[in-house]
Amino acid sequence: MRIDIISAVPKLLESPFNHSIIKRAKENGFLEIKIHDLRNYGLGNYKQIDDTQFGGGAGMVLMIEPITNCIKKLQSERKYDEVIYMTPDAKTLNQTTANTLSLRENILILTGHYKGIDQRIRDKYITKEISIGDYVLTGGELAAAVLVDSIVRLIPGVIGDEQSALTDSFQDNLLSPPVYTRPAEFEGMKVPEILLSGNFPKIDEWRTEKAYERTKEIRPDLLKD
Amino acid sequence: MRIDIISAVPKLLESPFNHSIIKRAKENGFLEIKIHDLRNYGLGNYKQIDDTQFGGGAGMVLMIEPITNCIKKLQSERKYDEVIYMTPDAKTLNQTTANTLSLRENILILTGHYKGIDQRIRDKYITKEISIGDYVLTGGELAAAVLVDSIVRLIPGVIGDEQSALTDSFQDNLLSPPVYTRPAEFEGMKVPEILLSGNFPKIDEWRTEKAYERTKEIRPDLLKD
Repeated sequence: MRIDIISAVPKLLESPFNHSIIKRAKENGFLEIKIHDLRNYGLGNYKQIDDTQFGGGAGMVLMIEPITNCIKKLQSERKYDEVIYMTPDAKTLNQTTANTLSLRENILILTGHYKGIDQRIRDKYITKEISIGDYVLTGGELAAAVLVDSIVRLIPGVIGDEQSALTDSFQDNLLSPPVYTRPAEFEGMKVPEILLSGNFPKIDEWRTEKAYERTKEIRPDLLKD
Repeated sequence: MRIDIISAVPKLLESPFNHSIIKRAKENGFLEIKIHDLRNYGLGNYKQIDDTQFGGGAGMVLMIEPITNCIKKLQSERKYDEVIYMTPDAKTLNQTTANTLSLRENILILTGHYKGIDQRIRDKYITKEISIGDYVLTGGELAAAVLVDSIVRLIPGVIGDEQSALTDSFQDNLLSPPVYTRPAEFEGMKVPEILLSGNFPKIDEWRTEKAYERTKEIRPDLLKD
């Protein structure tokens, strides 16, 4: 998979893409990520990329022309399966969307900053708008990093033990059951005995029960689907 | 505000906290962030911090002892208003939670990695569990960065123009209306005339209408509350 990201603050994305799973995915040839600095497409001597809103109001808006020029250049080099804009006013990312996107070949992600981007970009170029949740961030960079992480770990082979991804929360509409590791007792706190029993069918049963209980308590909405 | 973060992959957090708003908030004295490497509290010569699950199953679990030692040390130095664990099996972050947390003095955030942390830590030390959305990430680091960004930008004075934060999506249960900036026409695409009219009461009306339309189309669930 190849992922291109357009950003006004590209340096913000350096460390998330150079550690842990994303790093390994790149090293092992599963993933190529390229970040494009919108400033390189800025207008005039000051490389302007944003301006005040038409109609008044606080907050700067990323201009149509620099983004258009950047998208056109990238689209002249390859065909993208999706051109995604990260924004809070969009459908919310969920595990199903992450699963679907993990099967794509080329994805272009545009990140807003400040008050957002000129609406005409959204109307003309964007094929999918994604929010990572019902809260506002300074920019779309962290949202893009979250999206990339959620997708990349689902590419077959990226996580060493695929079983681990399959038993994550949301893959079966249930939250994960509690997990424990050594020591079996620490400062008076003990691991549930069933987990030490070696009776794996019973352990499976216990885990399903706990996953269901936890989902019912914390996220009953997931059980309604 | 002071935020302490415990992480098994602290380097992942470097760039998000050293650019844009977070950087300015630190420089202007609104915010102090300290990241603690869980590995420094690891056990034995190998500084072990994780182990396999009791009861079998894929994925490593962060051990109780290193985390306990790290939390105890931090709690001996200051009192935390909240000890937060970032995990997908928790209540989902929303703008209300971000608003509330932006008023706190000291926050400690624990980030999981791999399959999660030993449940006994959650039972004993965690005062609030937060998910950033219904999808699974490699670790809690990006989730912590998202949480911090959503909180810090709400601290009064951090964003230059506070009005900008107040008119964001979700502050009034509506998504934002579309925004536009210069030029008024680009490659045949025009800005809506109303925005160029200078009739500000009409512009306000148009924006409210568009915000409502967009919310109804994309996120009708927000209108039900």
